Amino acid sequence: MRISELSAQTGVTVPTIKYYLREGLLPEGERTAPTQAAYGEKHVERLRVIRALLDAGVSIAETRRVLAALDDPPESPHLLLGAAHGAITPPVDEALDLTEAERLVEGLGWKPGMCDPAVLSAVARALQGLDNAGFVVPDAAMAEYLASMRRIADAEIAGVPEESAEAAVRYVVLGSVLVEPLLLALRRVAQQVSSGERFAKEPDL
Amino acid sequence: MRISELSAQTGVTVPTIKYYLREGLLPEGERTAPTQAAYGEKHVERLRVIRALLDAGVSIAETRRVLAALDDPPESPHLLLGAAHGAITPPVDEALDLTEAERLVEGLGWKPGMCDPAVLSAVARALQGLDNAGFVVPDAAMAEYLASMRRIADAEIAGVPEESAEAAVRYVVLGSVLVEPLLLALRRVAQQVSSGERFAKEPDL
Repeated sequence: MRISELSAQTGVTVPTIKYYLREGLLPEGERTAPTQAAYGEKHVERLRVIRALLDAGVSIAETRRVLAALDDPPESPHLLLGAAHGAITPPVDEALDLTEAERLVEGLGWKPGMCDPAVLSAVARALQGLDNAGFVVPDAAMAEYLASMRRIADAEIAGVPEESAEAAVRYVVLGSVLVEPLLLALRRVAQQVSSGERFAKEPDL
Repeated sequence: MRISELSAQTGVTVPTIKYYLREGLLPEGERTAPTQAAYGEKHVERLRVIRALLDAGVSIAETRRVLAALDDPPESPHLLLGAAHGAITPPVDEALDLTEAERLVEGLGWKPGMCDPAVLSAVARALQGLDNAGFVVPDAAMAEYLASMRRIADAEIAGVPEESAEAAVRYVVLGSVLVEPLLLALRRVAQQVSSGERFAKEPDL
């Protein structure tokens, strides 16, 4: 199909499609004439993934790295998960002390060497943010964070499709990024429900 | 203390402090001369909160609204939670159909009217993002998201300090925002730990 048809089918405007082509997010179509190219189903599919990532707040640079992992997947789902996380996690911050983060993630079953240092660095950065604000997470809440995230991860990893590397990549990469806004929104709803039950006699919205 | 001392004590540069003053994030100091003002402990404290929010990725506009909730807290912790969420949640998107989101959050104990429509709208937006990408969350994982977020919220709400409105505000506002990066980072570590246990014979980093 032509670029105008690709636009009609996906709802993405032609200038935006051209922008994605220039940015290297969308592969070139098959050249059919000096000023024309043909696009296929893989372009439709890729545009859906690009839109989903950008809509979820992933940056252009991160999206490019996620798509690279989709195009050139490592062999094992475990290495793939590392590549997906690497694409969407800021690099290791050498200035951060990882000691407290390491002690904390032992509660997830973590042992030294078991995860990407960048991801551990993200835990340390989050703890630093709480510390800078003088915010102390109550012990009971922190214990629940650890237990819940481990249960969630187990349920997610148990669902990794093994029929093809492509399906596994798609599941791992998109599942890591796109589920995050869902979890955060569900937490806020749950907080309002729980707080309503504890503090309000009746719903006061 | 003078602005230079405030800067030395907090590690925030003088131009940045002046920027926060212009943006209305930091209240003016007490004027001691036409070109001089005195700053106190509340400015030190406020700067810590501003830095924590901005470092956590909260925008200037959202930070201004969060600080307004800190300065003028509603009476009940339940209303306060609504104000805090309102400050950091995008407004309701009228184009979104809330039906699926409402059905989903029933799994959290939600009933109609029990939460801010903007927060429900955020759930709908997240589901839309997954749908746009053609990503289907496995039932077992979705069930775990709901159960975990409810348990987390209960632990958090049980920890709301009731000794003063100010303490409650601080806990609710900062807890909502600053814990998010921690939860997401813990999920990624847990995924790598779980995936390592399932797919890798030994840690391969």
